[in-house]
Amino acid sequence: MLIYVAQLNPTIGNLTRNTEKILNTIEKARLEKAEVIVFPEAAISGYPPEDLLLYDDFIDQMQVELDKIIEASKDLFIVVGTIRRNKEKKGNLLFNSAAVIYDGKLLGFKDKSLLPTYDVFVEKRYFEPGIEQKVFKFKGKKIGVLICEDVWAHSENVYKKYEIDPIKELQKLKPDLLINIAASPYCYEKKDLRIDVFSKVSKTLNCPHIMCNQVGANDQLVFDGHSMYFDKEGNLINVAKGFVEDHLLIDIEKQTPVASYQIDPMQDLYNALVLGVKDYFRKLHLSKALIGLSGGIDSALVLCIAADALGPLNVLALNMPSRFSSISSFEDANLLAANLRVELMDIPIDHMYQQYLDLLSPVFAGKSFDTTEENLQARIRGMILMAISNKLGYIVLSTGNKSEMAMGYVTLYGDMCGGLGVLNDVTKSLVYELAKWINRKKEIIPSSIIKKEPSAELKADQKDQDTLPPYSVVDKVIDGYVEDHLSIDEIVKKYKIDETLVKELVERIHRAEYKRRQGPPGIRVSKKAFSKGRFFPIVQGWIAE
Amino acid sequence: MLIYVAQLNPTIGNLTRNTEKILNTIEKARLEKAEVIVFPEAAISGYPPEDLLLYDDFIDQMQVELDKIIEASKDLFIVVGTIRRNKEKKGNLLFNSAAVIYDGKLLGFKDKSLLPTYDVFVEKRYFEPGIEQKVFKFKGKKIGVLICEDVWAHSENVYKKYEIDPIKELQKLKPDLLINIAASPYCYEKKDLRIDVFSKVSKTLNCPHIMCNQVGANDQLVFDGHSMYFDKEGNLINVAKGFVEDHLLIDIEKQTPVASYQIDPMQDLYNALVLGVKDYFRKLHLSKALIGLSGGIDSALVLCIAADALGPLNVLALNMPSRFSSISSFEDANLLAANLRVELMDIPIDHMYQQYLDLLSPVFAGKSFDTTEENLQARIRGMILMAISNKLGYIVLSTGNKSEMAMGYVTLYGDMCGGLGVLNDVTKSLVYELAKWINRKKEIIPSSIIKKEPSAELKADQKDQDTLPPYSVVDKVIDGYVEDHLSIDEIVKKYKIDETLVKELVERIHRAEYKRRQGPPGIRVSKKAFSKGRFFPIVQGWIAE
Repeated sequence: MLIYVAQLNPTIGNLTRNTEKILNTIEKARLEKAEVIVFPEAAISGYPPEDLLLYDDFIDQMQVELDKIIEASKDLFIVVGTIRRNKEKKGNLLFNSAAVIYDGKLLGFKDKSLLPTYDVFVEKRYFEPGIEQKVFKFKGKKIGVLICEDVWAHSENVYKKYEIDPIKELQKLKPDLLINIAASPYCYEKKDLRIDVFSKVSKTLNCPHIMCNQVGANDQLVFDGHSMYFDKEGNLINVAKGFVEDHLLIDIEKQTPVASYQIDPMQDLYNALVLGVKDYFRKLHLSKALIGLSGGIDSALVLCIAADALGPLNVLALNMPSRFSSISSFEDANLLAANLRVELMDIPIDHMYQQYLDLLSPVFAGKSFDTTEENLQARIRGMILMAISNKLGYIVLSTGNKSEMAMGYVTLYGDMCGGLGVLNDVTKSLVYELAKWINRKKEIIPSSIIKKEPSAELKADQKDQDTLPPYSVVDKVIDGYVEDHLSIDEIVKKYKIDETLVKELVERIHRAEYKRRQGPPGIRVSKKAFSKGRFFPIVQGWIAE
Repeated sequence: MLIYVAQLNPTIGNLTRNTEKILNTIEKARLEKAEVIVFPEAAISGYPPEDLLLYDDFIDQMQVELDKIIEASKDLFIVVGTIRRNKEKKGNLLFNSAAVIYDGKLLGFKDKSLLPTYDVFVEKRYFEPGIEQKVFKFKGKKIGVLICEDVWAHSENVYKKYEIDPIKELQKLKPDLLINIAASPYCYEKKDLRIDVFSKVSKTLNCPHIMCNQVGANDQLVFDGHSMYFDKEGNLINVAKGFVEDHLLIDIEKQTPVASYQIDPMQDLYNALVLGVKDYFRKLHLSKALIGLSGGIDSALVLCIAADALGPLNVLALNMPSRFSSISSFEDANLLAANLRVELMDIPIDHMYQQYLDLLSPVFAGKSFDTTEENLQARIRGMILMAISNKLGYIVLSTGNKSEMAMGYVTLYGDMCGGLGVLNDVTKSLVYELAKWINRKKEIIPSSIIKKEPSAELKADQKDQDTLPPYSVVDKVIDGYVEDHLSIDEIVKKYKIDETLVKELVERIHRAEYKRRQGPPGIRVSKKAFSKGRFFPIVQGWIAE
């Protein structure tokens, strides 16, 4: 049995275009003599469609598109993710379903049983769980169909303690093959947890297991693809490419050697960020990005990512020195732009800064220099970036990293300006690792940028570490508090950091909530990002001075 | 049986302070000879505590606080909302519970059965539903206890088609009294739906029904209080005050005349906005607000609300005219500030605007005046507001209304600057109604502000209606598309608006998603606000040109 696994990149809500892509893929698969074609979860709508699901005509149109796919299925067995109405009078109004089609007919639906409602997922807002596990017969084989989270209750690494384990129920039906359609977002990890879980599933069911994942970035989420095929012994036989559309052609009767797949964490992280930028622009029909290039490491990294995602000719860098900017920063920015063949424009802001000081001098009289003046500089830069964006049609990419977003070490309406916060979910520690990784073959980012002490250069001789502990400490507290939800006590014990310091950093994290709430959407690459899947009140008294 | 209904205003997460308030209330109730005391849903944590619930120590501390309440309960029967662990190995980790206490002992918990996961609610992210309905015996009476949403499945106005109706199950247990603890947020409506539902519940159970609601604003949500007491015939006997802490003292054996309660929609809306501002400041230990006062109706209304919420001495208004500002706007702003006894500061921005034009002239060469120049003015104003905010400790209140937020007729990082978007969820039509309502006894807002055509005054002779249809049309499309999730076709039919126009407005709503994502949190007062409980992708192809 020849199976075509179609790892597609849909655009949320573009039902007609997504379906055209599915129909084109069906014809390609035919040419390859495939008998079975598998598409990802929610392939017609893209995932996650969010509150578009509250519109009746959106649901109706998915049915229209599904009918086109059914019509095009002559002689083929197709599994495709779609969303459909729950026609019962009770419960949520929709199912997140796999439509199972054969030869011009709909054989039925398998509705997702486990509906993730944690982190970035809110499926119980929309969907009713499917109760029944099913197999579909094709060419004498019983094909089990599951959707993404359905297989995860079978793992020890499970996020939620689910009531049921669809794998155990499916086991009773003795499937000859498991098809698992997914929209499983990427997150940075040193080891691929999916492989362990999927392998275990194959072994339990004693049958081959095909996982077809969505690829592409939709707002903050990046889907990495990496669709997989496991044999019935749980060996990983084949993996599709990461971060691009791809397909696998699998003959489940044929013995094939085990894949020598190993994840490359830094390459994947970089690819995720590039795809996050690329798809944001492509899917919004935009092409040109504008970046404030300070000569620091964050904006240097964003420039590399943008040049890769959009092409250097579509990227404009802007250096905006003030009286506090160093010559070396200016030189570093120039060298980097030259290395990347990106145009660098130079607009000094010092005169404008002085104008504001003069304008505000009656209000500021008798007050000393503080963050107000620092913010003024950052906001003048934001204004200039936005003015060029408005006039010339560039989209500003903001460059603040996760550690800065955590600490509030960013200026609201200043360096936080932008359509997309490329590094919002990348800690300063990972920023350094990525920069070194980019330079692994040759120096693209000038080494002086990587070596110098971090500084916002918003006052004389300023260093980030004047008002912050080292980023290595900050990042541990982020890991513990934000990603793992450890208490202050637990963080003190785990990382051996002084309690007063942990407490202060955790307070800073909460205090900066109001800034992050107004920050640009970030590309989620960690297991817990600030800008998606994390909900904290601005006004709260749990963590407060 | 004398029952004290304690309508309290907790601060999210301030467990110790919230419990102190509960303990003080217990002593007050004792003095009133109360035998039963009822507190709102989640009274210990405040509602909604959101992801604070993911921290083990937060859950542990709620138990510690609950123990203090149990200890203080000598001779009293107390029902208090708290959140506790689900000790089963399956399902979500927490229950949203009512602790039922008598005379120093915990009698048990009633766990919330219906967990709202729609609009602003995400309870299935955290909670496992309570399966069992219960009555607790006290002085020979069977007291049924339910939590907020639990009673709503019994309504025809239900938002969700729930599988079960706790009222029908409770009916079998024949309660003599129903205690319903709630955290039910306010939304603007002409008729109070709650009364119909609660009345029906009393009739079905054939017993008196006490609803104790949270009061106070927590971030975007405003809880209005209005705790209620219905007799067993479903007559509304008593209602606590709206938008302030209050209590009811109820003798359920005593015959009392029916209350003559009628909601006053405009007064409630105004109170909700005032409380939204007041609690944001009070709970963050802030006192002073800064408002850019243009002479238009939106900033005029915000100034009235802020002066009421914080006191006129804590409010500073800033007029920042450019070359496009009219003299009449300046005069109107001055007159309003005088009427409200609010200080008005004057900082003309035209010189600064010219500086930007000069600075950017090489980039802008050959391009004509467009929204870039309009945005520059709005952003200079934003910068000045933020500089004064930073230097002097004022919090900026932004003044954009819901119609502008819908249309994107606001400047990101410009007039959208602010800690709180007071009118984010108030349409322009309601802004006018509120302004007239404020002037109902005497003219506070100068009538010229109400009468003049809306204009941003960002270019010569500009009127909002140069690029927008009348707000009455815009607001109908907002009602239909945003609040009621009608399709374009349905809106065309319902409101008899031209299809091309509806389509264009709906496209504008989606196109402005990226701006709203970075807007200040707004005070939710409608049944569907932009800034809370609404999730749409920025990148989508369903509604797109």
